[in-house]
Amino acid sequence: MSKLETKFANLGAENAPGQEVRQSADDLKSMMIGDILTGEPVDFSHGDVDAFAPTPGAREAWEAGFEMGGAQAYTEYRGASVIRDQVADSLAGFTGAPVDAVDELIITPGTQGALFLALGAVVDHGTKVAIVEPDYFANRKLVTFFGGTILPVTLHYHDRAGLDITALEAAFEAGAKVFVFSTPNNPTGQVYSQEAITAIAALARQHDVTVIVDQLYSRLRYSGETYTHLRSCTERPANLVTIMGPSKTESLSGFRLGVAFGTASLIDRMEKLQAIVSLRAAGYSQSTLRTWFHEPEGWMEARIAQHEAIRDDLLAIFRAAGFPTATPQAGSYLFPELPKLIVSPEDVVRLLRIQAGVTVTPGSEFAPHTASSIRLNFSQDHAASVAAAHRIVDMVKRYQA
Amino acid sequence: MSKLETKFANLGAENAPGQEVRQSADDLKSMMIGDILTGEPVDFSHGDVDAFAPTPGAREAWEAGFEMGGAQAYTEYRGASVIRDQVADSLAGFTGAPVDAVDELIITPGTQGALFLALGAVVDHGTKVAIVEPDYFANRKLVTFFGGTILPVTLHYHDRAGLDITALEAAFEAGAKVFVFSTPNNPTGQVYSQEAITAIAALARQHDVTVIVDQLYSRLRYSGETYTHLRSCTERPANLVTIMGPSKTESLSGFRLGVAFGTASLIDRMEKLQAIVSLRAAGYSQSTLRTWFHEPEGWMEARIAQHEAIRDDLLAIFRAAGFPTATPQAGSYLFPELPKLIVSPEDVVRLLRIQAGVTVTPGSEFAPHTASSIRLNFSQDHAASVAAAHRIVDMVKRYQA
Repeated sequence: MSKLETKFANLGAENAPGQEVRQSADDLKSMMIGDILTGEPVDFSHGDVDAFAPTPGAREAWEAGFEMGGAQAYTEYRGASVIRDQVADSLAGFTGAPVDAVDELIITPGTQGALFLALGAVVDHGTKVAIVEPDYFANRKLVTFFGGTILPVTLHYHDRAGLDITALEAAFEAGAKVFVFSTPNNPTGQVYSQEAITAIAALARQHDVTVIVDQLYSRLRYSGETYTHLRSCTERPANLVTIMGPSKTESLSGFRLGVAFGTASLIDRMEKLQAIVSLRAAGYSQSTLRTWFHEPEGWMEARIAQHEAIRDDLLAIFRAAGFPTATPQAGSYLFPELPKLIVSPEDVVRLLRIQAGVTVTPGSEFAPHTASSIRLNFSQDHAASVAAAHRIVDMVKRYQA
Repeated sequence: MSKLETKFANLGAENAPGQEVRQSADDLKSMMIGDILTGEPVDFSHGDVDAFAPTPGAREAWEAGFEMGGAQAYTEYRGASVIRDQVADSLAGFTGAPVDAVDELIITPGTQGALFLALGAVVDHGTKVAIVEPDYFANRKLVTFFGGTILPVTLHYHDRAGLDITALEAAFEAGAKVFVFSTPNNPTGQVYSQEAITAIAALARQHDVTVIVDQLYSRLRYSGETYTHLRSCTERPANLVTIMGPSKTESLSGFRLGVAFGTASLIDRMEKLQAIVSLRAAGYSQSTLRTWFHEPEGWMEARIAQHEAIRDDLLAIFRAAGFPTATPQAGSYLFPELPKLIVSPEDVVRLLRIQAGVTVTPGSEFAPHTASSIRLNFSQDHAASVAAAHRIVDMVKRYQA
């Protein structure tokens, strides 16, 4: 294999959410046990924006952007300044620390875009990057793509012990220059405690490590949960980028909008990179950010309550079946661990889709050691997702070793 | 400077179209000769979608996508298959060679996105890439970003002699593995002749060079001009990607849509890269591609005629002033060469903006040797652009050496 072939073999996307349609199913018939399980198909690989519709006013905000014409079609690469003004204000209030709209914020094509630009700005050949396992699969792929080296740090989630801070410090001492992580964690829904965030901030500052913190789901927090924003810590790293976006909780994924905010010199690099990657987030879409943090009174609370009800039902089903499953404190991901099966983790995922009409993401995408888990995004129709969870349990019983 | 600092210093975007707002103007007053030239400001750095509005039906197509909901919000990374079907059909007809919608086409966030993915798929550290000078500025920046080495090949445009094919062959013999170019050429509007395209195709095949051809403006062709699609050549390279999009002629830039089509293995790599860069082109925007190549009868012809009239007026003004200016055969770029001035090329561009309300892109963005030229995108209000061209001539006379 050439260097480039290897590079792209490492970027395998066929198990990534939404790409299942490109998988082959020809060989599955020979291993199938029992009949097809009927029921409304549920695609847990991402949230269902038909079950949870986009924020009220999102469409109208897009239309207002379209009507604005050229000024909204061609914005600065970092996004329209008047929209950055509003969003910076909202994010300062939400995270408890100021955001300069001119220099410290960039609008990106989705939070994926923000993550790509942030890592591209700080990772080069040989850069050592501390990565949490399990965590969002693109983190590892991005570091590898930019030629960096991964220093894995374990997150304990079944017992909620959280990040192994000693291992993190060891990674920093081993030369990690960058640390990237998500809180709430994707795929487990764990929210990093105040103690953990404070420790990360202090250690990163001490070792001069750049921190990229993905807070995509930080608005969807369940009853009784508190949340600590790293950027509001008194002692924090000199180089810090926070990533958020309205694609998840607010169901605005079809608009492809994200934001990154933090250290001006890093935002500046990210804009330079955006200039050659895609110029800017779609101009008219940017206009929809005007609805962000300005949802109708009570709308967010209702959305959270609906998700919490689904979470609780699914947790009860998987736990009754004996699958160890951590309680998500925020977000809409559930990460049950399946018992030992007679088929491989990759095959069970394909069988679930073909035989039971249930699409999930294999745990191997998030860490090498979580291959026996599956990730569900439960932002779905409530009844359909409960029925689908029962089908998962039924399937696991058929294929249990 | 660290390796990363150098890398991003090389990505300087402050002279890129649309970024002028981030330039400082404080030092200009001391060098200003004469008064402010009043008149309607014209931003020639990109087309004016208020003067040339988006394709009829574009907004309604977006709205239909939004109403489709989840199926349009979350598409395969390479784009919704039903839309790829339609677009592949149109592109096969337009370019005169088949396009497989399943394996040979990807929808991207703008043509910039397509170019980034295409070069990312084939350029790695040390890859030698033949680059035309002058040509679209991002070509050189992208090659440098991915760690490649640039082998420049000159395009002769004042005399329309075209690409220096001998120099291209020498670059291939010197080890170029990739050749990227635009036709019509950005910034000069030169359309590569059938002879040139045939020679490029044959040479690339012979030397096993991957070709990326940017045909962004290939629909906006002026009276009497013919066009040769490289992908329709009988003898063509094994690895070939063609890039197009509706952002320019069709004024759909605010939707951020592009396509790349060609060799399946390269499209596959591009999709893997898209999975970590931005996932997909904004879902609802993709729906607007349904209008592409399906514009109302006579609409495209009228649009071309309007641009041709502006082109002819601007050419007459600049030539009367003695600025050598090649006739654009297609597209809406004009690349007049200014006489020797008493201020630097960078300063004249800033003076034009501050003193004369005219934004242009400096020629240094397109090749090291074209710094005394300026690029104008004349997809503008006709009367305003004629007045602005007169102000450019007036300014040049003030600052002439």
